Amino acid sequence: MSLCSTERRSRRFCKKSKTTLPKALRKKAMNSDLKATAEFLKTCTRVSIFSHVNPDGDAIGSSCALAKGLASLGVKADIYNVSPIPKAYYFLPKAKETKLFSGTEELAPVIIVADCANLKRAELDKYPESLAGKIVVEIDHHVGNEYFGKYNYVESESIANCENVYRILSAMGAEIDAETATALYLGLSTDSGSFRFDAVTAETHRIAAELLEKGARTDLVRMNIYESVSKAKLTLQKYLFAHLNFACAGKIAWCALNADILAETQAESNDIDGLVDILKNIEGVEIAILLRERADGVKISFRSKEWVNVNELAQNFGGGGHVRAAGATINEPLIKATEAVLACAEQSLGEKR
Amino acid sequence: MSLCSTERRSRRFCKKSKTTLPKALRKKAMNSDLKATAEFLKTCTRVSIFSHVNPDGDAIGSSCALAKGLASLGVKADIYNVSPIPKAYYFLPKAKETKLFSGTEELAPVIIVADCANLKRAELDKYPESLAGKIVVEIDHHVGNEYFGKYNYVESESIANCENVYRILSAMGAEIDAETATALYLGLSTDSGSFRFDAVTAETHRIAAELLEKGARTDLVRMNIYESVSKAKLTLQKYLFAHLNFACAGKIAWCALNADILAETQAESNDIDGLVDILKNIEGVEIAILLRERADGVKISFRSKEWVNVNELAQNFGGGGHVRAAGATINEPLIKATEAVLACAEQSLGEKR
Repeated sequence: MSLCSTERRSRRFCKKSKTTLPKALRKKAMNSDLKATAEFLKTCTRVSIFSHVNPDGDAIGSSCALAKGLASLGVKADIYNVSPIPKAYYFLPKAKETKLFSGTEELAPVIIVADCANLKRAELDKYPESLAGKIVVEIDHHVGNEYFGKYNYVESESIANCENVYRILSAMGAEIDAETATALYLGLSTDSGSFRFDAVTAETHRIAAELLEKGARTDLVRMNIYESVSKAKLTLQKYLFAHLNFACAGKIAWCALNADILAETQAESNDIDGLVDILKNIEGVEIAILLRERADGVKISFRSKEWVNVNELAQNFGGGGHVRAAGATINEPLIKATEAVLACAEQSLGEKR
Repeated sequence: MSLCSTERRSRRFCKKSKTTLPKALRKKAMNSDLKATAEFLKTCTRVSIFSHVNPDGDAIGSSCALAKGLASLGVKADIYNVSPIPKAYYFLPKAKETKLFSGTEELAPVIIVADCANLKRAELDKYPESLAGKIVVEIDHHVGNEYFGKYNYVESESIANCENVYRILSAMGAEIDAETATALYLGLSTDSGSFRFDAVTAETHRIAAELLEKGARTDLVRMNIYESVSKAKLTLQKYLFAHLNFACAGKIAWCALNADILAETQAESNDIDGLVDILKNIEGVEIAILLRERADGVKISFRSKEWVNVNELAQNFGGGGHVRAAGATINEPLIKATEAVLACAEQSLGEKR
C-alpha cells in the first residue's frame, strides 16, 4: 500500500466535497449564457473556429463537433489552429481539413474560440488585426476563464469542453449524427482520463450514454487514440522506464528527457502527453515530474496525486495550471533546472504534510 | 498510422454490428431469470458468496457489493474465494474479511457464485461434498455460461458482472449505499477497460451515473487500482519495455517473462494484469502475446485488436477465452513454447487477411 494509506483509510467513504467555484469566479460566471450564445450562433451564416495551441482531444473534438453541428444548420464553418492537428485525430470529421493559421488568412465575421481560457491560449492575441470588426464567441470549461467574447458560454464544472459543446449544439437544435457524437465522445473520454478523474460527474456519464445512442464510434477512439502508441511514443516510454528516478523516499518520481532522445524520436506533443502519468501512477508517488530539454528552455510537467498543489509549485518557476496538473519553463541547463525543481518539490511535500 | 489504416478508413462510421448471442445460447438464456433470482435471495437468511480463482475487480466488486447489499436486508453473507484477495482491493467493503476456501469450511445453505461461467471457474467442482444439499444461485455475464445454478441470472451483454449485481440488488430493494456503489463501480470500470471497450453500452454509462449519484468513491478506485502501480508491477513493466519483440512486420508484439524475473518480483496476479495490453496498444500491432514461465508450464495471454480471433488461436494449445482476449498453458520449455505460439499466431494473421 502507499505511504499515505493510513490517512486514506481514515477518509474512506467520507462525503466527497463538491467542487465549487471560488466566489470571485462565481460572480463572473454570470457572464456565461448558454441560451444567448446558442441563439446568436443560430443567426450566423459563416464562422471560423479556433482552439488552443498544441490541441488535444478535447480541443479537436470541440472544434470538429462544432463545425459538423453548425453545418447541419446551414452555417459554413471552417476550423483553424496555430498548430498542426496530429494525424492520430484524422479519423474525426473535418479534422484533416483544419487550416494552419498564420495570421494572414481571411476569417469569417464570427470567430468561435473553443476550450481556451483567453485569446492568448489560441495565440489570437498575436493577430489583433485578424480580429478587428469580428464578433468573438467563446465556449470553454476552464476555471479562470477571462470572458473575452461578446458571447460566452463557460461551464467550468464540465470535465470536458465537449460537454459544453454538446449543450450548445443541443440548445441550437443542431443535428448530432454519429460523426459529431464521435468527436464529442473523444473530448469526454480524453479530458476525463478515460472517465477516471475525480471531476467526472453523473452528467458526464449521462452525456456519454446519449452520445453512444447517437452512434458515437467508441471503437475508433479506442483504436486511434488509446491503442495506437506511435514508434516515437514507444521509444520515449522505453527511455522513461530505463531512466526513471525517485526522490524523497519514493514520494517524488521524475524523469528528464534530454535533447538527444527528443531529437531522435521527433515526438509530437501527443506522443509526450501521458508520459508524466506513468510516473504519477506508481504506488506511493505524490509528485510526478517530467522535464524536457528544448531549444527554448527546459519544459516541466508536474502532476500530483492527493495533496500537493502543483499549481503553486509551478508558479515558483513562472508557470501554473491546475491543483493536480501544471507546467512551467525554466531557462537553465537541464541539470540545474532538475536540481531546482526537485528542491522545490521536496519543500512542497514538507510544507503540506 | 497503423498498417491497417486503409481498411480502417473504409469502415469509418459504418454502422456497428450489434453484438447478439449465438442462437443456441439465446435459447439457454431463457434459464436466466432476474425476478425469480431476486425473489429467492430475499427469502434467504444466510449465504456464502464465491467468485472465480485469481479474482479481478469485477469478481471482487460483485462479491463485496452482494455481501453489503444483502446485509442491508438482514441476510448474513460471507465471502469466500480459493485465492487470496490482492491487497489493492482492501479499500472495498468486506474485501478484507474474504475467507480463503480450502474445502473444509462450513458453508451457508445458499451458495451464490458470481462472475463464473461454471463451477470449475470457482474451483467448486473440486469440493462436491461442500455443495451437497446446498442451493446454488449464479449471477454472471459470460457467454458460454453453463446455467449450473438452481437460480440463474445471466446477462452476457453486460460488460461487467457488476451491472448484473446492480440489477439484482435493485430488484431486491437492497440499499445501495456509497460503499456498495463503489464496489459496483469498480467492476464496471475495470471490466470495461475504463469504459473504453467496444461492448460498453449506453446502459453501462447510465449505471455508472447512478452509482456516482449514490456516492461511489471513484477517487478510491482511481488511487488504489489505477494509480498504485506496485514495485513488482513497475519492475515487470521495466522488463517488458526492455525485452519486447515484434514479429510479422510489427503486427505481432510479444514478450516472455522468464522464471527469474517472476521470482525476483514475486508478482501477484493483479501485477501481471494489463501488461499484455501495453503490447496490444502499440500502433500496427494486431496480436499481443505475453508468455510467463511457471512451474506448471508456460502460461500465455493473447490479445487482438481488430480482426484475429485469439479464442481460436488459444484453442490450438488447449486454451480459450474470448475473441479479443484468451489464454492457454503449454507444457514445454519457454523457448519451444514461444516458437510454437509465434508460428501459430503468424498463421492466424495470414488466414484472416
